[in-house]
Amino acid sequence: MQEKVQAADEGFEAVAWRDDAAYLLDQRLLPQREEYLRIETAAAMAEAIGAMVVRGAPAIGIAAGYGVALAARAAHAGGDPGWRVSFAAECARLRAARPTAVNLGWAVDRLVSLAAGLQGDPFPALLDAARTIHAEDIAANRRMGDLGAALIGPDAAVITHCNAGALATGGYGTALGVIRSAWRDGRIARIYAGETRPWLQGARLTAWELQRSGLPVTLVADGAMAHLMRTRRIDWVVVGADRIAANGDVANKIGTYSLAVHARAHGARFMVAAPLSTFDPAIADGAAIEIEERDPGELLQLGGRRIAAAGAGAWNPVFDLTPAALIDAIVTERGVVERPDAGRIARLLG
Amino acid sequence: MQEKVQAADEGFEAVAWRDDAAYLLDQRLLPQREEYLRIETAAAMAEAIGAMVVRGAPAIGIAAGYGVALAARAAHAGGDPGWRVSFAAECARLRAARPTAVNLGWAVDRLVSLAAGLQGDPFPALLDAARTIHAEDIAANRRMGDLGAALIGPDAAVITHCNAGALATGGYGTALGVIRSAWRDGRIARIYAGETRPWLQGARLTAWELQRSGLPVTLVADGAMAHLMRTRRIDWVVVGADRIAANGDVANKIGTYSLAVHARAHGARFMVAAPLSTFDPAIADGAAIEIEERDPGELLQLGGRRIAAAGAGAWNPVFDLTPAALIDAIVTERGVVERPDAGRIARLLG
Repeated sequence: MQEKVQAADEGFEAVAWRDDAAYLLDQRLLPQREEYLRIETAAAMAEAIGAMVVRGAPAIGIAAGYGVALAARAAHAGGDPGWRVSFAAECARLRAARPTAVNLGWAVDRLVSLAAGLQGDPFPALLDAARTIHAEDIAANRRMGDLGAALIGPDAAVITHCNAGALATGGYGTALGVIRSAWRDGRIARIYAGETRPWLQGARLTAWELQRSGLPVTLVADGAMAHLMRTRRIDWVVVGADRIAANGDVANKIGTYSLAVHARAHGARFMVAAPLSTFDPAIADGAAIEIEERDPGELLQLGGRRIAAAGAGAWNPVFDLTPAALIDAIVTERGVVERPDAGRIARLLG
Repeated sequence: MQEKVQAADEGFEAVAWRDDAAYLLDQRLLPQREEYLRIETAAAMAEAIGAMVVRGAPAIGIAAGYGVALAARAAHAGGDPGWRVSFAAECARLRAARPTAVNLGWAVDRLVSLAAGLQGDPFPALLDAARTIHAEDIAANRRMGDLGAALIGPDAAVITHCNAGALATGGYGTALGVIRSAWRDGRIARIYAGETRPWLQGARLTAWELQRSGLPVTLVADGAMAHLMRTRRIDWVVVGADRIAANGDVANKIGTYSLAVHARAHGARFMVAAPLSTFDPAIADGAAIEIEERDPGELLQLGGRRIAAAGAGAWNPVFDLTPAALIDAIVTERGVVERPDAGRIARLLG
């Protein structure tokens, strides 16, 4: 079994395999406490994924991969020839831990297919495959990081939004991967992070992640971003994506579209960093992407305390849609699409 | 002493005079609790203003006016011919309660000048004058409300920001006065309020105020406003102002400029409602308005709990600047200036 997981330069890992077990950085406790949960069984992994100890689709997929290896180890432990029955049950439980995360099902299915062809103890091969998924994700992020950084000129001031970082992936991050690479190359003068209401991923996670990795970060209220762009030079807004339509329209965390409008109005450029798995060629354009709206309580309460009047309503869309026309570059592990449109994206996806 | 203060239609009063004392709605406790502090001395009024029991420049001015009357009553109580010495000391203390609020000094000075010419017990005349200041503010707000509402067509969807309501004034409000009048006239279909980070005045105060007055309100995260304007028809954004330059550039709560950019980009119109006292003709344009930046801690903490990583910085401008070119109408008690510029504003100010 080779060591495929590259050591995390960022000083922490959302998901890791060490000492015969998986470890998850408990993101529910950030930024107050940095604690890792040791996960020794598939059931514990399924529970941790469901409880959002780990979040971010790529990170969830990697965690589930290790969960499948743990399931195989426990099922086969006694040399039981009927181990495949309990293994299948555990894998099904992992797959259902968060049904909406695309990468979760993809990772579980990939390892379950591999297990079907294995003879003898399945654990070593499955752990190796889980580590491969992990390593592939980091490699894709590093590749995107380098491609995206090459677009960024010297002494750049950048804005990011939400958390598309090492915390959401196997390591390095997508949007934050671009910023990490550009920082490494000495091209970044300032990093601003939007706090990202209502969940405050920017304040809670991105500020923590960048700080933890030694990158300076300045937090800004979402409503102050236009004022920031009007009064200080901003070169790039760099964000991740949850889904990209065939024409390049991008669904991402609420607040992304607002930044894209302001970037265009103030002469900043707008970059989306996302792996190929984020593209949904079956969706012609953003109009067909359904935007999830969540519980108004997320806006009406804060830290368990009601902040708005009883009876007041709230509108709480979780994502928004940024038209391709406002995007200067989409960066993937296969290359960069500048001024994205249906033709250029079709050529990228081949 | 005539009854000059119009009964508050909105169901509450930020400042009131009842039963021989002033009352302040304690805005620090909203929206959790609606409690009034009975204020019987000038010293108690100065302390309450300093502690932000009451906020909003017009409301502070009115409260200080009642404070001056209370100072005169106490000083003259014993028929002391030397009452003017202690009266002057109390007025100085009131004036210093929040040195940056323009209306505070203006109200205190107006009543101190009046007191200088009074013979005998000064209290009745000073209380009458304080009530006049209060009544004038409400009358100006009602006039602005009617003028602004006349610009709003039927079945309108409006957005407001921060709190420019009855809570910030003697009653009725400026931006919320426009919305109240338009609602009364049956022209409003939907009212959206931005939560207004970092202080959450929209969530804590505007949602409470509108709800308390029977106007339906939907709270929206500041970062979701662009998505709101892209996906639902919005007719007007209606805000107040902290200062207006001679050319119509408007300084207002952080987040206002972002809304103005989005309004223009999405075909919504943008209205500023502010009394004449908000204009600063000595300032040629917004470039000369200094934008206050406050403690980064207001973004790094939330409800006393740290939300961002130790070591993360924050940029916390409290106001922003909206260029006159993005403003469709400025509404004052003297009339409306559409498409404001230096010439039109000079004609208004006469």
